[in-house]
Amino acid sequence: MVLIAGPCSVESRQQILDIAQAVRASGAHLLRGGAFKPRTSPYSFQGLGEQGLEYLAEARAKTGLGVVTEVMAPEQVPLVSQYADMLQVGARNMQNYALLHAVGESQLPVLLKRGMSASMDELLMAAEYVLSHGNRKVVLCERGIRTFETATRNTTDINAIPVLKSLTHLPVILDPSHSTGHWEYVNAVARAAVAAGADGLIVEVHTRPQEALSDGGQSLKPERFAEMVGQVRAVAEAVGRKLLSDEALVLKEKALR
Amino acid sequence: MVLIAGPCSVESRQQILDIAQAVRASGAHLLRGGAFKPRTSPYSFQGLGEQGLEYLAEARAKTGLGVVTEVMAPEQVPLVSQYADMLQVGARNMQNYALLHAVGESQLPVLLKRGMSASMDELLMAAEYVLSHGNRKVVLCERGIRTFETATRNTTDINAIPVLKSLTHLPVILDPSHSTGHWEYVNAVARAAVAAGADGLIVEVHTRPQEALSDGGQSLKPERFAEMVGQVRAVAEAVGRKLLSDEALVLKEKALR
Amino acid sequence: MVLIAGPCSVESRQQILDIAQAVRASGAHLLRGGAFKPRTSPYSFQGLGEQGLEYLAEARAKTGLGVVTEVMAPEQVPLVSQYADMLQVGARNMQNYALLHAVGESQLPVLLKRGMSASMDELLMAAEYVLSHGNRKVVLCERGIRTFETATRNTTDINAIPVLKSLTHLPVILDPSHSTGHWEYVNAVARAAVAAGADGLIVEVHTRPQEALSDGGQSLKPERFAEMVGQVRAVAEAVGRKLLSDEALVLKEKALR
Amino acid sequence: MVLIAGPCSVESRQQILDIAQAVRASGAHLLRGGAFKPRTSPYSFQGLGEQGLEYLAEARAKTGLGVVTEVMAPEQVPLVSQYADMLQVGARNMQNYALLHAVGESQLPVLLKRGMSASMDELLMAAEYVLSHGNRKVVLCERGIRTFETATRNTTDINAIPVLKSLTHLPVILDPSHSTGHWEYVNAVARAAVAAGADGLIVEVHTRPQEALSDGGQSLKPERFAEMVGQVRAVAEAVGRKLLSDEALVLKEKALR
Repeated sequence: MVLIAGPCSVESRQQILDIAQAVRASGAHLLRGGAFKPRTSPYSFQGLGEQGLEYLAEARAKTGLGVVTEVMAPEQVPLVSQYADMLQVGARNMQNYALLHAVGESQLPVLLKRGMSASMDELLMAAEYVLSHGNRKVVLCERGIRTFETATRNTTDINAIPVLKSLTHLPVILDPSHSTGHWEYVNAVARAAVAAGADGLIVEVHTRPQEALSDGGQSLKPERFAEMVGQVRAVAEAVGRKLLSDEALVLKEKALR
Repeated sequence: MVLIAGPCSVESRQQILDIAQAVRASGAHLLRGGAFKPRTSPYSFQGLGEQGLEYLAEARAKTGLGVVTEVMAPEQVPLVSQYADMLQVGARNMQNYALLHAVGESQLPVLLKRGMSASMDELLMAAEYVLSHGNRKVVLCERGIRTFETATRNTTDINAIPVLKSLTHLPVILDPSHSTGHWEYVNAVARAAVAAGADGLIVEVHTRPQEALSDGGQSLKPERFAEMVGQVRAVAEAVGRKLLSDEALVLKEKALR
Repeated sequence: MVLIAGPCSVESRQQILDIAQAVRASGAHLLRGGAFKPRTSPYSFQGLGEQGLEYLAEARAKTGLGVVTEVMAPEQVPLVSQYADMLQVGARNMQNYALLHAVGESQLPVLLKRGMSASMDELLMAAEYVLSHGNRKVVLCERGIRTFETATRNTTDINAIPVLKSLTHLPVILDPSHSTGHWEYVNAVARAAVAAGADGLIVEVHTRPQEALSDGGQSLKPERFAEMVGQVRAVAEAVGRKLLSDEALVLKEKALR
Repeated sequence: MVLIAGPCSVESRQQILDIAQAVRASGAHLLRGGAFKPRTSPYSFQGLGEQGLEYLAEARAKTGLGVVTEVMAPEQVPLVSQYADMLQVGARNMQNYALLHAVGESQLPVLLKRGMSASMDELLMAAEYVLSHGNRKVVLCERGIRTFETATRNTTDINAIPVLKSLTHLPVILDPSHSTGHWEYVNAVARAAVAAGADGLIVEVHTRPQEALSDGGQSLKPERFAEMVGQVRAVAEAVGRKLLSDEALVLKEKALR
C-alpha cells in the first residue's frame, strides 16, 4: 500500500518544504501538490505554474519523496514530466481525450481520478485510452461522486474498491479528502478504504489549513495525518496488507521508470 | 459491535431454522428475516405474514438469537411486537410518519433504515419522530443510496458512518447486502464499515441463495458469512472495537426491554 | 386538461375560502389543500386534521370546486373520503404499500405522486398496487426528482411526461411548485409540461405566501396564477389540447364517482 | 429562436450533404455534425477529422447553413475555426479549462454544453472562463443531466431554462436528443423547451438512423424533424416568440462575425 500526501496547491517554497518534511516523517511515500490548478471560477487562485513545479522538485531533493502533480492540457505534459514522478489527470479531465492521449504517450505512471459523475465503466474506458497509447502504468483513484447528499462535499463510493479490483488488475487508491470534503471524516474513510482493499491513499495535508489557498477545510494537519497513518497501518495488517517500506518503494519506482 | 444476519424473507420453517443455526454458529447476535415484505411489484412474493413470524419465534427458541423483522404499517405493530425483539422500519417507509409514530409508542428497539434518497438530516429527523413519541431505542442503518452508478444496486455511503456518529449518540450500523446488491462485494464493504466506526452490521445470509424468493444475488452462503465474521473481527480489533460476546448481548437485551 | 390549485396546507377557514374563490375565478377545476401534512421534522406544523377537512368541504360548497387532499395512513382513508373528491398519496408514501392497498379499495380517484427518487418503473408498479385492489381511477403526478442540482428544490423530470404517456393509459399531470421550489419558475415549467403533453397541473397558490405555514416560497399569488392559466391555455391550444370546461368537468366527475 | 440540426457525426460526404439539404428544407438555421468525436471507448468511431470538416464546409456552400462543430483540444481550435461558424465545447469538456481559454481567444461564437453532472453555477463559471478571455459570444446548452433514472439516457433539466434565463443574459438552448436519448421523446421535449423560454434547439437528425455510427437511436428522421419544426413553431407563437427568419439569421451572423 502506498501513501501519497501533501497540500492541494503548492503555495510557496516554504509551505511545500515544510509539508513535505512533515508527511515524510509520518511515513508518506509520495508528495502531492498542484502547480496547475483546475478551479471552478476563473477568478480563483490558479496555481503557481512552473514555479510550483520547481518547488516540488526541491522538496523531492530534500526529502526523497517522489512527486505527483496534475497536468491539465496535452501541451503541459512535456514540461510537467521534467519535474514529476507521476502525472495526475484530475476528475474534471477524466474524459479529456486529448489529454489521455498525451499522457498515454508518456513514460511516467498516471494517476487517473474518477470523474465526479463517471460510472466505473467510464473510468475503465478512460484508463483504456491511456493504455491503448502504450502507457501501462495507470493507477485508478476513487475521489467521491456527486449525489444528492449535501452533508459531505462528495459521496465516497466505497463499493468502487471491490468492484474495480474485481474488474481490473490496475491498482486502485482512494482520496478521502475530496470524497468527504471535511477533515474530521478523512481518517474514518481512509481506514474504510484500506479495509475494503484499496492499494493506497492520497490525502491532503497542510501545516496551516486555515490559511490554505484551496481545500483548507478538508486538509489534515501533520499530527492528524500521523495519527491516520498509525490507524491505517493497523487496519492494513488486519486485512493482511502492509504499507510499503521505503526500500521497497525505491525499488518499485526504479522498475517503473 | 452487533452482527445481525439472516435471510431477506422467511420462506419456510426449515429454511429459517437452518439459517438461524448457521449464523448462530458463526457468531451472529440477532436473526433477521422478513415476514411482511415491501416489494416493488404487487405480483412479487409478499412474505408469509403471521406464519413467518411464528417460524421466527421458533428459530429464536432453538438458537437463542433475538429476532429483527420489518413492520410495514401502524396496525401491524401489536402483532409483530408479540414475536420480535426489534422492529425494523424499511427504507421505503422512512418517512411514513404514521408508522414512525406507532413504533415510537412501542417498547421495542427500532431499526430505522435510511431511505434510498434520504439525506442524513432527513434520517435524523425521521429518528426524531420515533424519539419524540417516547421510544429512545433507535438504531440507524445506512443501506446504500440511489445514485447514477449502475454497477452496484445502490451506492454505500460510507461517509454516513463518521458523519452520523458525529451528529448523534444513536448507534449506526450498515447493511452491506443492500448497499452493494452483490454477494461478492459484501465482505469488503462490511470490513470498511467496521473500520469507519460502525456499531454493527446487518447481513443477508441464505443457505441456498440461488433458490431464494428475494435478494438471492446479494445473500452470502453460511461459509462466506463465517469468513466475513472472522475478517470483521480482525478489523474491529485493529480499530479498538470488539464484537459483542453472547453474555454481554443477553445483558444488553435485558436492559433494553 | 385539468387544473388543480390551492394552498400547501389548510391553515384557517378564511384562508382556504379566499384561496378557493381566487383560483375558481381564474379557472381552476379542483381545489388542493392539505389537512394532514407529512413534514420532515416532527416539530413543524402538522396540519389542522379533521378541522381542515371541514374547511375544505365548506370551500367546495361555496365554490363548486372538487377537493383533492392527502391521506397519510390506511386508517385515515374512511375519514378523508367523507370530505374529499380525490385522495392524494404523497411522494414519501409512494411505496407505502398498506396505504396503496387502502386507497385501492376506495371508490375515489387517487392522485399518486412520484417518489422523490422513484424511477418511472417504480411509479407504475406503485400504481399497479392501487389498480390491483380494484380502483382504476389513478392519476400519476411528476413532482420533481432529487438530483445533485441545488439551484432548485427538485429537478423537474420533463422526460417523464412523454415516457409515461407512452407506457400507460393513465393520466399524467405535473406539479411545477414542488418540482422547482421557487414561484418564479413555476409559470415556465407549467407551460413546458403542457407543451410536453401533460394532462393537467397541480399548483400551489396562496393569497399571502410570505405568511404561509409551509411552502410559501413556491406558492403563486392569485394574480400570478391567473397569468399562468392564460399562458397555459395558449400553449395547450398550440398543441391541440383544451382546458376542461366546467360543464365537462361536472360530467366527468359524475362518471368517476 | 434558432434551430440547429444535423447528424451526431459526419460519416461521409453524401450523408452530410443529404442531411444538410433535408434540415434546410424544414427550416433549420445551422448545421451540426461532429468531425472530432469524444467517445467513451477508444475503440469506438472517433470521427473523420479534417476530412469531416471539409464535408461540412461543402454542405455549407451548398445550403447556406452555418456550421456548428465540436472542438476537443486547444490545438484544434485554429483548424476547426477555418471551417466552422460556431465552436461547440462538449459536455465532457465543460471544465477543460485550457480548451475554454482557447475558445475564449477565438472570434467565433461558442456553444457551451452543460456537463452531465455540472450544476448551473458551474456552467455559468465555465462560461465565465470564455468571457474572461475576451469572447462574449457564448450560448449555453442544457443537454440533460445524469440521475438515477434509467428509462432515459439523461434527465432533461427543464428547470435550467428559466433559472439560467434569470441569472444571465446569455442565450440558452436545449438539446432534446441527448437529454432524452430516444427519438420518440425528442419532439415532446423540444416543445417543452420552447414553452419554457429556450432561445433555440439543437437536434440530431439522420436520414438513416439505423445505420448511424453514433447516436442513431436518438436521431430524428427528416420527416419527423419537419413535424417537430411545425409543432415547435406553434408553441413558440403561443408564448410570443418566433423562429428566426433566414434573412434575420444572415444579418445576425454578419453581426456576430
